[in-house]
Amino acid sequence: MNATILTIGDELLIGQIINTNQAWIGEQLNLVNVRVARMLTVGDDMQAILTAFTEAWSRSDVVIVTGGLGPTHDDITKKAVCTFFDSGLVSNDDVRKHIEEFMRKRNRTWSPSAEEQTLVPRKAGIIWNPLGTAAGMLFTEGRKRFIVLPGVPYEMKEMMTQSVLPLLAGLVEGTVIRHRTLRTTGIGESDLAELLGNIDELLQGASLAFLPAPTGVKLRISVHDTDVAAADRKVAEVEARIRAKSDKYIYGTGTEELEEALGRMLLARNKTIAVAESCTGGLVLEKLTRISGSSAYVLGGAVAYSNGAKTALLGVPAALIEKHGAVSAEVAEAMADGVRKVTGADIGLSVTGIAGPTGGTPEKPVGLIYIGYADPSCTLAVKHQFAGSRAVIRDRTSAAAMELVRRKLL
Amino acid sequence: MNATILTIGDELLIGQIINTNQAWIGEQLNLVNVRVARMLTVGDDMQAILTAFTEAWSRSDVVIVTGGLGPTHDDITKKAVCTFFDSGLVSNDDVRKHIEEFMRKRNRTWSPSAEEQTLVPRKAGIIWNPLGTAAGMLFTEGRKRFIVLPGVPYEMKEMMTQSVLPLLAGLVEGTVIRHRTLRTTGIGESDLAELLGNIDELLQGASLAFLPAPTGVKLRISVHDTDVAAADRKVAEVEARIRAKSDKYIYGTGTEELEEALGRMLLARNKTIAVAESCTGGLVLEKLTRISGSSAYVLGGAVAYSNGAKTALLGVPAALIEKHGAVSAEVAEAMADGVRKVTGADIGLSVTGIAGPTGGTPEKPVGLIYIGYADPSCTLAVKHQFAGSRAVIRDRTSAAAMELVRRKLL
Repeated sequence: MNATILTIGDELLIGQIINTNQAWIGEQLNLVNVRVARMLTVGDDMQAILTAFTEAWSRSDVVIVTGGLGPTHDDITKKAVCTFFDSGLVSNDDVRKHIEEFMRKRNRTWSPSAEEQTLVPRKAGIIWNPLGTAAGMLFTEGRKRFIVLPGVPYEMKEMMTQSVLPLLAGLVEGTVIRHRTLRTTGIGESDLAELLGNIDELLQGASLAFLPAPTGVKLRISVHDTDVAAADRKVAEVEARIRAKSDKYIYGTGTEELEEALGRMLLARNKTIAVAESCTGGLVLEKLTRISGSSAYVLGGAVAYSNGAKTALLGVPAALIEKHGAVSAEVAEAMADGVRKVTGADIGLSVTGIAGPTGGTPEKPVGLIYIGYADPSCTLAVKHQFAGSRAVIRDRTSAAAMELVRRKLL
Repeated sequence: MNATILTIGDELLIGQIINTNQAWIGEQLNLVNVRVARMLTVGDDMQAILTAFTEAWSRSDVVIVTGGLGPTHDDITKKAVCTFFDSGLVSNDDVRKHIEEFMRKRNRTWSPSAEEQTLVPRKAGIIWNPLGTAAGMLFTEGRKRFIVLPGVPYEMKEMMTQSVLPLLAGLVEGTVIRHRTLRTTGIGESDLAELLGNIDELLQGASLAFLPAPTGVKLRISVHDTDVAAADRKVAEVEARIRAKSDKYIYGTGTEELEEALGRMLLARNKTIAVAESCTGGLVLEKLTRISGSSAYVLGGAVAYSNGAKTALLGVPAALIEKHGAVSAEVAEAMADGVRKVTGADIGLSVTGIAGPTGGTPEKPVGLIYIGYADPSCTLAVKHQFAGSRAVIRDRTSAAAMELVRRKLL
């Protein structure tokens, strides 16, 4: 079963927006064993869209279209779909109710564009959009499916996950592909490759992708087989061999982020944490609190960007900062102790450093980071020297800080 | 002059890699007034590549192909090019010298794959690759150009900048395209469309794209004209008409983010800010401090996730929280006051609310947010009701908080 992903929007053609929807959809289809044969992008132009529809629909079992479903004049995808499938528009009551509810919650009044959003092609099935007002559309021709979704990423992803992927997974036959992703942090791509050693022995016919990111390297195991159970068994065997060599770097699997893994551990051990951040400016706390339910173990903390704030919010003695400098092991430890005491958390974590691109000196270059840790039994600081842009250094630092706590909890 | 960008690689189709090359090339071509009509991605499959070549070459004046030029078994683009243009391979002496020099510098010994890299199609012109060993290829047919580049981003970008863009700029005639992006926040896509009213009057032949995101809607004005000055004048006229109707929602232009715009204003007015966050968990501070140099106006703040932390870090009276609840205008104001006092900032900003998906009640549903503001002359709180996932609600909230300060500074 093969698919074409068609993304629509002038902003994509002029590179104003990077096409992350396309990549995400490709990844998701692959996971349900739908083979993506083509990705195509065209602009907000009726003829270009219709030509792309014709090509994609003649070539593929599944066509997934995103973009151009909004309420404004440049959103012409719905009109193109009506022309292509020779279908009129009809106002849908369920969609209307949803939009009314949606606008009521936001204290917004009914408008012509809201009315326009209630219209769907008569020949289309509706794909529910819980997070927005633009309904998705489904056209069926035998085993073929033509699916139209909005381009707003969080709406599209919700609709794919809730409706489209289950629908397609039910249609797939033949060989299966099984994947498993092991998520590592604290070790670089090449060091990890060294550690894993002879790749053929390790994989024995499976395939392995190294997916590096500032916060860590993902290892993606893939196995093709005609039998699901056999494929799953092979994946498990490869995972076991990989873990035997690198387990301590693996914090989670699949889509689990480090902040989720750490949250799970804190919850299981019934420990609370507080964080004091300087150069990361709140990134560690922001990541920890992305997780729903994190209020059970994250008490909060301080972003002490100025020296004054380090003293006022965390009780770090001005003299200590004066003596060792704000970017030092001593201040990192004092920040971790301070945030722990002031919040009453079991664990205090701190970050101080130079994210750059400015502010570096020969003694304290850009990328120099101290991470502090405090619990009832010990206080310590770890030094790192990271490279990359300001954003990358902040990202690496936040991962290193969370990883330090994870290792202490192990 | 219109172009197709063709990117080749299985890793793109399964979403293992986000196609940033495509976006970058699109942006660059647009800047030299080559209109990108299509972006197409296919896998490392000979038939798929040849079909894509045929389509693209018949459709476009310019075809830019990237990917699959490496030395490994799955890099088959060069073979496909030879088949498509019916050309044999010949070892090129200049390329050989370059590769020899390249490997000598890296103390690498000559290999079969290096030998293979010296081969280029007899019918192709060479596009120099200063940063790598895979030579680029140029095929010419009248005014049409078929250009093949490696997929390694920094190699491709260098070759585009040094060779391809100057080449194409020299061929372009006729219309130029000019764009300008106005960035709004605090108003939804449809409300903004309503506010702008009759779109034809507004645009008078120009085009306008609405690009919505949780943090705000971008408006991109585009004008095609034969004369650069005339195009720029039309863009300026459309911008003036848009600003006349919606200026207070426009915080910046081009790629400027709200946190940059706000930072600029704080710096210009010599004001410092501190932030107290609950449900956003540090996102506002994290965004403000993404900007290099933000230490000049961001003093820091507190993430008071627990009620205890609100009292300990910000001096919010426990009784006040008891009486009104942590998610209330009163507590939002107390948090803004508190963070201002404890840090000594000119402006105190605060956020308290329910990001969800859990923790909502009928009286205080998920998405209920209070934003507090305090300066020497006033303290206030604003109520919002946002929808979406936890991440979207946090994102919307952070934008609304920064926007509140921007409006106060105006």
